[in-house]
Formats: sequence, structure tokens, C-alpha cells
Amino acid sequence: MNTGIINLAHGSGGREMLELIHSFDFTHRGQWENCDDDSASLDIENNNKLVFTTDSFVVDPIFFPGGNIGHLAVCGTINDLAVMGARPLGLSLGLVIEEGFSKQDLAVIIRSVIRISEETGIPVVTGDTKVMENGKIDKIIINTSGVGIAKSEELLTRDIVTGDKIILSGGIGEHAVALLSKKFDYETDIITDCKPLIHEISAVKDLIKLAKDPTRGGIAAVLNELCEKHCISFLLDEEAIPVKHQVRKITRMLGIEVYELACEGRFVCIASQEEAGLVESRLQEFNTDAAIIGEVVHDEGNRVILQTLLGKRILPVPSGRIVPRIC
Amino acid sequence: MNTGIINLAHGSGGREMLELIHSFDFTHRGQWENCDDDSASLDIENNNKLVFTTDSFVVDPIFFPGGNIGHLAVCGTINDLAVMGARPLGLSLGLVIEEGFSKQDLAVIIRSVIRISEETGIPVVTGDTKVMENGKIDKIIINTSGVGIAKSEELLTRDIVTGDKIILSGGIGEHAVALLSKKFDYETDIITDCKPLIHEISAVKDLIKLAKDPTRGGIAAVLNELCEKHCISFLLDEEAIPVKHQVRKITRMLGIEVYELACEGRFVCIASQEEAGLVESRLQEFNTDAAIIGEVVHDEGNRVILQTLLGKRILPVPSGRIVPRIC
Repeated sequence: MNTGIINLAHGSGGREMLELIHSFDFTHRGQWENCDDDSASLDIENNNKLVFTTDSFVVDPIFFPGGNIGHLAVCGTINDLAVMGARPLGLSLGLVIEEGFSKQDLAVIIRSVIRISEETGIPVVTGDTKVMENGKIDKIIINTSGVGIAKSEELLTRDIVTGDKIILSGGIGEHAVALLSKKFDYETDIITDCKPLIHEISAVKDLIKLAKDPTRGGIAAVLNELCEKHCISFLLDEEAIPVKHQVRKITRMLGIEVYELACEGRFVCIASQEEAGLVESRLQEFNTDAAIIGEVVHDEGNRVILQTLLGKRILPVPSGRIVPRIC
Repeated sequence: MNTGIINLAHGSGGREMLELIHSFDFTHRGQWENCDDDSASLDIENNNKLVFTTDSFVVDPIFFPGGNIGHLAVCGTINDLAVMGARPLGLSLGLVIEEGFSKQDLAVIIRSVIRISEETGIPVVTGDTKVMENGKIDKIIINTSGVGIAKSEELLTRDIVTGDKIILSGGIGEHAVALLSKKFDYETDIITDCKPLIHEISAVKDLIKLAKDPTRGGIAAVLNELCEKHCISFLLDEEAIPVKHQVRKITRMLGIEVYELACEGRFVCIASQEEAGLVESRLQEFNTDAAIIGEVVHDEGNRVILQTLLGKRILPVPSGRIVPRIC
């Protein structure tokens, strides 16, 4: 492999991407904090934190069971603000469109954007539209950035200790399985899990220590990231991880690791042993699949350990090209 | 022409783009204001306005005399905040890269981003990196969004009256002429005008009523936009508009209207008759080409009138594909 060029693994949310990003020398962050997190935060007046995030969406196909690229872009950025504990204030919408793209398809995408924006009460307030010549870009890509606000004490950046529990808000792998059905041409009634998480997070915000949405690289990526950042290890009970039967079957058939697949409407959160049961039951009111899936353990490896029926195995940081553009 | 599809004119910053954007039904803006401006603004606590903007850069070629796409992306977003009168607080950086792109070229682009960020003291605080398969995107595109803050009275959204003067901060057409030299293979020592405008705007902020950076569609687009928005007309003195001799020559040779070309380090601003001379002289300390180029006149057409040596002509809103991707 030519090491001097960018390859698909650099965009997959795994090890190669982290290495590439760390090779960029962004040391000047001013007064901003949490710059390696889902959203960065900045102290402004009156104990307020300004929260800011960005994401570009290059999903292929752009229409998929249960959603489309517009829907995905808006939910993705709302969720990156929400998992930080912030109240989203507004979104930007940057469209880059291929010459020859259907205006009708564009209207459907924009209507999805507006629908989510209205349902959540989070307005799209600034935007940009560019067009590239036919063949210079694959149909359409969308960037959404977002700003939010939180009181300092609301920010979900609390300390984690051994014994804390990990709760997953619903089944994983559904977005990927829905999307890949169009690519690999199989039948499934699974639809994307893509949705805004603000209500679910609000319901448990006072009980949890932090939250992460397992998008690119799935729970394998976000849990390993937390291990490295907080110098902890996780022990997950594989039997407890909610994966719909059909999702498990299709990912096995395709030979892909379900734990590495992007979710677009799920989050993992950490709560103390005492609060975890309440977090689980509150989240089950939104999604019956929500479950405690493991705990923080004393282990010097800063790693994710999976307790399976056959014994323990390590769940590594994803590496290589995981799946094609699913977000 | 097939009216059901997107064409290059929809991304050129002219009439077609405005029509497309107005066809999107973004009526839900919450408490945000100035959503059709360079940056949107929102009242937050203590008489502060949060200011938010986004821009995607699809320039081709990505390296050009005096700059590159990274340099352009950072300056563009800083300037969109600055012309609103805001103090930029932080930037996001969304990269979408073609598989096979040179890591060395990427490093050069990122270094430009970091250099401008450090020189201006405006940090890049959040980002996203995606990779698309070879042939699915033309090399690299960058989205930069930005957040800033301003006291209410600092926001450059003041009322304009007949007799006010228009001041241009420097020569126009330079970015386009530098960039097109690589495309049309002509020799020129003109380099891009791309640069952050924060110091120039700070120098005149207390004297001016509003400012706009003439990017896509050039001064023809921004001045017409102001006419429509404020129900005014402008009378410009063509002889006073600063255009370098070489720029004038090359644009005539290429048959393109210099007033429609994107600048990336210039702004037009409006000041009262009394203050205009002082604004001009302060701006001339940064760029000797800065000049008063016209005034607000009583005319019911809400249009831009150009006083030429041969008489008056209307400078229309740009329409059609102006020039290839220059920003």
C-alpha cells in the first residue's frame, strides 16, 4: 500500500483516521476545551458554555430505508451537541451538489431537513450552496455544523470510576444494515435508526456522567476512545448488547463486525452503579432494547473486553476500511 | 435547458442560486436574525449576539498563485463573521478527500489553515474527515463554519440613507485572475487577494454602517443584494472602482465582467457622507487601492447604476455560470 496517499481507511473513524488527524498539528485551541470530543466547548459569560460541532455527510446511497442524507445530516449534528449535554441552538447547512442532480430529489432532501428542524425546534439558520461539474462529485454531500449552549454543570464530561455501568440506548447495526441492503441488494425490513436524540438524553441527563453517539466505527470506536481518554477499561457482556436477530444474521452473512457499524440514533452512556438501573428503565421508555451492557473494570490495558459465551476477547479499535460510505 | 435539474449557475452566487434557495422553505428560524446575511445572529445573555456562518469551498485548482484551498476556506469564514462586526471565536474544519489524494498536499493545506488560525488567533476547534472513493469527488473540498460574538451595538446592520457613500477596501478581480491563470494557462504576476479582514474591519468598525465581502458574484452580486434588501439604489463611478491594469486587461481578454468576480480579501462598506473620507483613509493604510466608489441615491429601481465615461448603465444581478469554481 502506498503510504503517501489518503485511502478509504482514513475516513472510516478507526485507527488510521485518528493517526491522520493527530498528524495535523492543531495545538492552538485558545480557551476552547473538549476539542477531541463530539463537540468543542468554550466558557462564555454567566457560567455558560458555548458548544460547537461539525460533520460532513457523504452517505451512498443518498436515499435509504427510513431516511435520506438530509435527515441523516441534521440528526447527526443535533446528536453531537446533545451527547455533550448541550441544548442545540442552531444549525448550518452546506450543500455541495453535482451538476445534473434532480431538483425533485433535492426538494425531498431539504424537506427532511426542515421536518427534523421543526420537530426538534432547532432551526437551520445559515447555509451555503455549491455546484460542481458533472462527474466531479458523487450526487450530493452535506455539511451540517451546529452551535449549542449548556450551563457548566450540565456538560456531560464527568469523571468515570471503576464499577460504573455502560448503558446502550437501543439496538446497534440497524442503520448500516438498512443502508447496505440497497448496496448488496438483499431484502430486509430493518430501517435506519437515524433520529434526533435530544429527548432521550434529556430524560437521563441528570443521572449520567457522559454520553457518546457511536457513529463511524460504532461502539468499538467510541468505547475504545473512552478507554484511552479516561485510562479505564470496559468489560462488556456480549449477550447483553442489543442486536436485532435480523441484523446479527445479515452482518454475519456479510462478514462484518456489528460492533464497528455506525448508528445514527443511538448513544452509549456511563452512570454510577446506583443510577444505572434507573437510566436503563428511563431509556427503555423510548426503546425497549435499551440495556446495561457492561461496566468499568480495573485493568491496566485501557481496552474493551468482550465477555462472550466462549470466553473473553478484546474488542479492538476498528482499522481498515470498515464498510462503504454509510454516513 | 432541463429546468428539473441543478446546473452550474445554481452555485454561482447569482440570480439562479437565490431562486433555488428561496424555493427551500426555511421559515422556521427561531429567535435567529440576519439568516440571509453573511452570518446569522442570535441574542444570548448580557446584550451579546452569537454569530454563526458556514461555507463550503470547492475551488479548482486547489493550489493557486498566493494560496490554496485551506487558506481560502479559513479566510472565507473568518471574513463572513468579521463583516457582521463580530469577533470570531472559533472555526470548524470539515474535510472531504478523494481516495488517492497526496498526504503531502494535504499537509500543505493543513499548514495553511493552521498558519492563518495562529496569525489571527482564531482557533480551529472541531473537525471532521471523510474519504470518498477515487473518482467520486474532485481531490478535496473543505467546509469551514465559524462562531463569533458581538455586542448588539457592534453588529454591522445599521440603517442606510440617501447620500451615504460606498467604500471598497482594495482592487477587485485579483483572486479570480490569479486562479484562472492556471486554468487558461496565461502568465500573470497577480496573486490572490485572499486574506483575513479582521484588522481592516476593526479599523473602521465604529465608522461604518455595514460591510459585505464580495465573494461569489463579486460586487455586482453583493451591491444588488443590498439594494433589494434595503430598498435603495447605488450610483457607482466606474472610474473610481479600483481594478489593477493587468486585471482589467485579462478580464477583457477572457470576456468576463470584472464586477462579477469573487474577491476573497476585500469588502465593501457603507458610511455616512461625513465619515466616508475617514473610512477611506483608514483603509488606505492597509491597501492604497481602497477608495470611495459611489453613493446611495434616490432612485425607485433598487438597482446598481454604473456611471461610465459613455454614460450610465445598469449593473445587473449576475446570472448564468459566471466562471468555473473559483471559491
